[in-house]
Amino acid sequence: MDEKNFLENIKNGEISINDGIKYLKDFNYKEMNFAKLDFQRKSRRHFGEVIFGENKKIEHIIEIINSFIERKEDVLITRLSKKRAKKILKSIPSLNYDPLSQTGFIKFSKNEQIGNVAICTGGTADMKIAEEARITAEFFGCKTNKFYDVGVSGIHRVFSKMDEIKKANAIIAIAGMEGALPTVLAGLVDRPIIAVPTSVGYGASLKGISALLTMINSCAEGISVVNIDNGYGAAYNAAQINFLVEGKL
Amino acid sequence: MDEKNFLENIKNGEISINDGIKYLKDFNYKEMNFAKLDFQRKSRRHFGEVIFGENKKIEHIIEIINSFIERKEDVLITRLSKKRAKKILKSIPSLNYDPLSQTGFIKFSKNEQIGNVAICTGGTADMKIAEEARITAEFFGCKTNKFYDVGVSGIHRVFSKMDEIKKANAIIAIAGMEGALPTVLAGLVDRPIIAVPTSVGYGASLKGISALLTMINSCAEGISVVNIDNGYGAAYNAAQINFLVEGKL
Amino acid sequence: MDEKNFLENIKNGEISINDGIKYLKDFNYKEMNFAKLDFQRKSRRHFGEVIFGENKKIEHIIEIINSFIERKEDVLITRLSKKRAKKILKSIPSLNYDPLSQTGFIKFSKNEQIGNVAICTGGTADMKIAEEARITAEFFGCKTNKFYDVGVSGIHRVFSKMDEIKKANAIIAIAGMEGALPTVLAGLVDRPIIAVPTSVGYGASLKGISALLTMINSCAEGISVVNIDNGYGAAYNAAQINFLVEGKL
Amino acid sequence: MDEKNFLENIKNGEISINDGIKYLKDFNYKEMNFAKLDFQRKSRRHFGEVIFGENKKIEHIIEIINSFIERKEDVLITRLSKKRAKKILKSIPSLNYDPLSQTGFIKFSKNEQIGNVAICTGGTADMKIAEEARITAEFFGCKTNKFYDVGVSGIHRVFSKMDEIKKANAIIAIAGMEGALPTVLAGLVDRPIIAVPTSVGYGASLKGISALLTMINSCAEGISVVNIDNGYGAAYNAAQINFLVEGKL
Amino acid sequence: MDEKNFLENIKNGEISINDGIKYLKDFNYKEMNFAKLDFQRKSRRHFGEVIFGENKKIEHIIEIINSFIERKEDVLITRLSKKRAKKILKSIPSLNYDPLSQTGFIKFSKNEQIGNVAICTGGTADMKIAEEARITAEFFGCKTNKFYDVGVSGIHRVFSKMDEIKKANAIIAIAGMEGALPTVLAGLVDRPIIAVPTSVGYGASLKGISALLTMINSCAEGISVVNIDNGYGAAYNAAQINFLVEGKL
Amino acid sequence: MDEKNFLENIKNGEISINDGIKYLKDFNYKEMNFAKLDFQRKSRRHFGEVIFGENKKIEHIIEIINSFIERKEDVLITRLSKKRAKKILKSIPSLNYDPLSQTGFIKFSKNEQIGNVAICTGGTADMKIAEEARITAEFFGCKTNKFYDVGVSGIHRVFSKMDEIKKANAIIAIAGMEGALPTVLAGLVDRPIIAVPTSVGYGASLKGISALLTMINSCAEGISVVNIDNGYGAAYNAAQINFLVEGKL
Amino acid sequence: MDEKNFLENIKNGEISINDGIKYLKDFNYKEMNFAKLDFQRKSRRHFGEVIFGENKKIEHIIEIINSFIERKEDVLITRLSKKRAKKILKSIPSLNYDPLSQTGFIKFSKNEQIGNVAICTGGTADMKIAEEARITAEFFGCKTNKFYDVGVSGIHRVFSKMDEIKKANAIIAIAGMEGALPTVLAGLVDRPIIAVPTSVGYGASLKGISALLTMINSCAEGISVVNIDNGYGAAYNAAQINFLVEGKL
Amino acid sequence: MDEKNFLENIKNGEISINDGIKYLKDFNYKEMNFAKLDFQRKSRRHFGEVIFGENKKIEHIIEIINSFIERKEDVLITRLSKKRAKKILKSIPSLNYDPLSQTGFIKFSKNEQIGNVAICTGGTADMKIAEEARITAEFFGCKTNKFYDVGVSGIHRVFSKMDEIKKANAIIAIAGMEGALPTVLAGLVDRPIIAVPTSVGYGASLKGISALLTMINSCAEGISVVNIDNGYGAAYNAAQINFLVEGKL
Repeated sequence: MDEKNFLENIKNGEISINDGIKYLKDFNYKEMNFAKLDFQRKSRRHFGEVIFGENKKIEHIIEIINSFIERKEDVLITRLSKKRAKKILKSIPSLNYDPLSQTGFIKFSKNEQIGNVAICTGGTADMKIAEEARITAEFFGCKTNKFYDVGVSGIHRVFSKMDEIKKANAIIAIAGMEGALPTVLAGLVDRPIIAVPTSVGYGASLKGISALLTMINSCAEGISVVNIDNGYGAAYNAAQINFLVEGKL
Repeated sequence: MDEKNFLENIKNGEISINDGIKYLKDFNYKEMNFAKLDFQRKSRRHFGEVIFGENKKIEHIIEIINSFIERKEDVLITRLSKKRAKKILKSIPSLNYDPLSQTGFIKFSKNEQIGNVAICTGGTADMKIAEEARITAEFFGCKTNKFYDVGVSGIHRVFSKMDEIKKANAIIAIAGMEGALPTVLAGLVDRPIIAVPTSVGYGASLKGISALLTMINSCAEGISVVNIDNGYGAAYNAAQINFLVEGKL
Repeated sequence: MDEKNFLENIKNGEISINDGIKYLKDFNYKEMNFAKLDFQRKSRRHFGEVIFGENKKIEHIIEIINSFIERKEDVLITRLSKKRAKKILKSIPSLNYDPLSQTGFIKFSKNEQIGNVAICTGGTADMKIAEEARITAEFFGCKTNKFYDVGVSGIHRVFSKMDEIKKANAIIAIAGMEGALPTVLAGLVDRPIIAVPTSVGYGASLKGISALLTMINSCAEGISVVNIDNGYGAAYNAAQINFLVEGKL
Repeated sequence: MDEKNFLENIKNGEISINDGIKYLKDFNYKEMNFAKLDFQRKSRRHFGEVIFGENKKIEHIIEIINSFIERKEDVLITRLSKKRAKKILKSIPSLNYDPLSQTGFIKFSKNEQIGNVAICTGGTADMKIAEEARITAEFFGCKTNKFYDVGVSGIHRVFSKMDEIKKANAIIAIAGMEGALPTVLAGLVDRPIIAVPTSVGYGASLKGISALLTMINSCAEGISVVNIDNGYGAAYNAAQINFLVEGKL
Repeated sequence: MDEKNFLENIKNGEISINDGIKYLKDFNYKEMNFAKLDFQRKSRRHFGEVIFGENKKIEHIIEIINSFIERKEDVLITRLSKKRAKKILKSIPSLNYDPLSQTGFIKFSKNEQIGNVAICTGGTADMKIAEEARITAEFFGCKTNKFYDVGVSGIHRVFSKMDEIKKANAIIAIAGMEGALPTVLAGLVDRPIIAVPTSVGYGASLKGISALLTMINSCAEGISVVNIDNGYGAAYNAAQINFLVEGKL
Repeated sequence: MDEKNFLENIKNGEISINDGIKYLKDFNYKEMNFAKLDFQRKSRRHFGEVIFGENKKIEHIIEIINSFIERKEDVLITRLSKKRAKKILKSIPSLNYDPLSQTGFIKFSKNEQIGNVAICTGGTADMKIAEEARITAEFFGCKTNKFYDVGVSGIHRVFSKMDEIKKANAIIAIAGMEGALPTVLAGLVDRPIIAVPTSVGYGASLKGISALLTMINSCAEGISVVNIDNGYGAAYNAAQINFLVEGKL
Repeated sequence: MDEKNFLENIKNGEISINDGIKYLKDFNYKEMNFAKLDFQRKSRRHFGEVIFGENKKIEHIIEIINSFIERKEDVLITRLSKKRAKKILKSIPSLNYDPLSQTGFIKFSKNEQIGNVAICTGGTADMKIAEEARITAEFFGCKTNKFYDVGVSGIHRVFSKMDEIKKANAIIAIAGMEGALPTVLAGLVDRPIIAVPTSVGYGASLKGISALLTMINSCAEGISVVNIDNGYGAAYNAAQINFLVEGKL
Repeated sequence: MDEKNFLENIKNGEISINDGIKYLKDFNYKEMNFAKLDFQRKSRRHFGEVIFGENKKIEHIIEIINSFIERKEDVLITRLSKKRAKKILKSIPSLNYDPLSQTGFIKFSKNEQIGNVAICTGGTADMKIAEEARITAEFFGCKTNKFYDVGVSGIHRVFSKMDEIKKANAIIAIAGMEGALPTVLAGLVDRPIIAVPTSVGYGASLKGISALLTMINSCAEGISVVNIDNGYGAAYNAAQINFLVEGKL
């Protein structure tokens, strides 16, 4: 019995008001049972589904991508290794795959990129994560600006770009090793900074845990943090803020 | 020698162009030496100084507050224990001190509260941190909405408030123990969520580290995280977003 | 508009089927808004509310207990320190408070205790947690059997009790230090064991983390684990199993 | 000397009562020395031996399986990699091997599957562990119900299945990343939940430690936890409860 | 039915051989049920009971000590705080209490001290633990030699005592902070070293975890490690070796 | 100038007493400079050099082994992978290499094996470490007894062997996962137990850290612990005790 | 027998050359036995003894200080709490005690302060540690320069002082929370930086572990790190470098 | 507009003093924008750029090296794996690559090596890191002295070299496993020691974290610590001290 049937039955008296009350306690859950995953999500959360490319069977990923293609809906896949992408590309050659950031996407919509999301990295070794963030933000429709390799050990580099960075609606600050970049940025700008610790480093960097702790403990305000190497998540946050500021959310 | 003297000396030739070039390499730093701490900061970062009330001598805190009072500038003090506040109140009775959130403030400006910052907590035990966030956000000029005790173990509580929560420019989600609240919220709204793990819990909660890890690893997008019990920091982030969205930053 | 109004409006055509469909998408959530906390919970989860006594203001706890007393409903409070209990007892002298386990309860119902929940401890130092478990299990209506101080360093102690332990529907095994008791028990019985690590120990016991790890890694099957010192949680689990087996859930 | 010999010797006086008393102190242990591993275990713990397929030599595993085949007894092997399974299948082609869950079994008995064990996962990436749990539970004779991909980021998914999940004797809840699924489930059902953290995730997921901590610290009652990726252990626990409830243990 | 009854019943035919076989499967466990805790332990493990003085109620400790006094048996209590000892001394003034090591004992036996156990400490701050070890070892009947404050930062101190240290049957090496003492000793002697990390230190000493890790990872052979601050456990190990070497175990 | 020259110069007056005193302050160190590594060590520590086979260049290992062969001295190499052993065997075919334990040795001496070292393991997966311990102990001249697969989940297995285990001078107890074996053993015997945690396990076993913590925190006395997977170190300790007890050290 | 006796005995033949050789193997160690602790140390390590004031009995500290006073030697005591200092001052009123840094000293020598050691802190909350460093460095004879509260969140503060900081022989950089100060400094100067993490912070600062990790992982070269809150150790290092550079070591 | 243009414009009045003041606030940052990376750095920090060879694309590394070659400037690359070096050598055969330390360099300058940097290792397994330190120190122009394999388990080895080690301006002490070497050295010399923990070890060595903790907690003064396996960073620190002492910085 779907929503329509239920309501018709109420109307024509086949279900009594009392029985209806009881029934309704659980209704919405069941009704959700028939919901199309994507439409619900888009209406609920603004951005469509994104596929986490790890730990999934390649056949499943192909199937999911194809169901998006059928509906002519945009789809983004993150953390997709080169080896796996290769196999997928054989059956879906229209996939735009970027080996550095390990992301792939197919786009039907023609959304213009709006707003301003700044993406800063401490070093060139963080570029892989920065590009995941950039591709994600642009996929969602944000205009982005790259400020790569502006790390703290040569602090003049970040200063020289400060005027441009200050114009962003949201700043993504990506750094490995000791992870001090977001702190230095936060001391200089008034925009929200989404900090991304990376697993770049060795020894006591603990695969990014040290950078994560640095960012979480920052003495400078205006920093919030996402998971290690989570360029995608940072871009999602930044896109939310960007669209809110631009009045599109 | 201040900026004006320097430029006059260049103009009248007392400093040669070549000497000037050399001199300029360090100029800005020195010039900053004379800068008034507060004005700089306010122009640079929008919000004025806030005093971290821990690990500081009471005499120092009193002196700092008084210097703000003299300038008729607003001042906020966080993490100020009842015992210490008592001593401060003896010499500064105009301090508005809230023992639950352990914050105090003095306000001269009459800023209206604008925008919409939602503050959600998992349980009543997280209220101390929530109130730190609320007082901070309101001090900075944000309108706030409280949704306390909407935790996940009785999930209908958060559902019943969802329509109101969805209207916020930014959502602060505060939870201790297993810290699942932000994840559930993020699955239902399209607004940026600033997650605050709290030290509420015992045993394997590791004084908030478990909740922090939960939030950082959330499978739901749109969450970024601040330090354990850092209601102040979350409010700062939320205020930035709130003012940006309202066109005031 | 409550459930009844809604359905009547559908019946008499004031709300069209189509509008009704749209409306129903959010219905259940809103409806939950008016729900009485306790009845919902009891019907949903079988056991009533239990108050976590830490991190709450004493006034709040008193208010909550009184609201239960008014309805003549049973109430249990856990982790209530002696000092705080003393203050509560002044205004609610009918509270049954046990200082060892730091629990208090008021009981109106006359439920008989049924089934069989065994509570085993490694040493006498774990008794505080064991008593929290026992009082909880009995509060919920379980018959309990105590096997205290049957730890592994004198392994014959646990053997001599094995015949009785084997009869339980569920076994709560409580141990600190190295936490080996559940493993030894699990090698000898076929009943589900709920393991409770305690913070008893020093040095590398890491306040119970070591015992927790021991239990989680047990080579013997049939063990599942709750938080450190969480006698209450273990009793809750055991009560669920006990009532299921006795056909009362 | 086995039990029979000993008792006959006592009877006919060849062993004196006094010598017998001394002898008996260690009797049971020595007698166990000759015990057939499997029978003992089955009578003691209800379920037969299961082989942990890691860290063992392939030749040993083959030998063990064959000894089960000879006795026409069922045998289950867990954590058996594809590569190793391949080699074993060469000499034991009757092994039912499932590469996704990395389990294999041989079954002689024709036990019907009884009761109701629900298996829920947060995402498709947790399916490997879920299938280990399902195959184990079914191997032991449980009826199972799968609720895969009902994770918290799209919370309606779990709601739509709630009516069915509520009917289970025991619920296995499997989730990686932030591991919030068991908490949400526990807020909605009154059945015991065995939570399985998985190593799905990256960065601060710490290979499942984060999900483990989330589950151990859950604010919702009725959850107990097994080791990371331990689908087998969860199924074992669930089977115990399932058989107890069904009156078969 | 005790062992004697059982065997007599077998002899006179009241219990059949077949019933006896069945019965014997659990016999030893039940028989242990009647065992006197202390005699069993002493015969099984050579050293009598020692009372862990923490986490126990004072009344329980007093009761236990008195039961030892009644039997005229020696008793040792460890980790007994000054405050608690004071209360106990009121009812048991014969207790020999040492406030530095927080141990107490009552001795009836007149065992001579034999063998040679060396006790070395890195610094005077480790003396509390060293004295716990010394009093324990002497309580058990070991001759001891103290080498306090022979730490590694002034390495000549340990060298000057080496000839004497080399004569020990077992060496207890106690150190906090970086915990290097056992490593240096192990490079110079051929006797087994029981290393005791202490919680002396601050910051990254992690309350003794750092010293524990140092000792566990030692590149020098002949070191085994006990828990942080576990002078008692080290003395127990050393006493075992000492008595074995002296032919008394 | 070696020791002899120095003393002759003192005797014949070429070095004055005063110069000699000054000179002696550093003498021993310099003199050690010329010391033959192996003789010193053997006289100082009883057992000869053992080569740690990891992290060393294969050419270095070959060179070291050959220098032992030239002197006709026994040599043991531990943690030598199969791949590396293969290369070494090409140039030193006389090396006795055991692939399971990854040890190799060459023996010229004909030492009889004396005393009694018991080697117990929790499961067959710990055999690799057990064999490293056995080969080491026998290389040093100890008689050994193997008690493999006597783990705690089937506790009767260890009981049935207890009489034999009790005869050992020292017991090596090896276990992974939850590591409870040494605790159970220590409750039953009066011999020193050297506990070896192994990296067998998964998830929260943390590659052996959990087992290590279990063993360090054991509530049963008589246990001391060596590094994870350090069968060699345990054997070294056991050999020291064994020889001391047998009067050979 | 002291050195002189020994050499005279060699000269007059009472000890043969051969016996002398044997004897010399251990000579230096024994000789060290009679060494005066302080002179040895001063000649060996340049700086005299400093007393670690924690974990020692007050009577011991008084005794040690008095032995220094008798010899008219300078003495420094670190980590001496106010409460303990009070008691010591009663019997040694000449002690110069500083309650902020919790250090005390008595100075007889009149060493001029030479060189240049810069002491920088991130915030005023780090002042306690900074003052420990300053008093230590000055006690050892270093000229110091204070740059307090030049933390990274207001980065202009450190820039304005850079010219002065650059002149130091060694820089001590003290910071809590995220600990980014040394990284920023190291990017701007060419002097060795000794970084001191402090326990200032809360939540994920883990009592200084986070700051320690930040400093150890710094992407900027020229930083080495001491223990959390170890202002004394940093000053010791800085003093060594300072004196070396000034040609006094 | 560069510095020269700006100052000429001030002089000739094209920019007013007031505009100049405003302009200067950001001047230095922008000016830095045009700065040549290498010259700036060299003048600011004395040592030129060093390339971190990990996590960078090979093409990028080649490009960077070539830009150094064009300017005839020295360049050092660290952490460059053999496999990657091979590819680089194809296009830049003049690269001096050392496979043991995984470093490569090209040198145009003919700097003499001055001063004295001692490099000590605990074992031969630490040689990889020691050689990274040696090559770095020599690349920067330091004279070095190697003291390899002077670890603590054979402590005479380090004593025999002490006279030479004492002459160094700075000592690099490299050790894995328990990491005790720097502590022993610091007890014997008065020179600053830069301690390098290495990842040599297994089990509880935690890939170098244990050695790092040992060194950070050392009870001996004069030790500061760099990251695990960071031979390069230690050499950088040592070179700074060395040049300062030699009057070249």
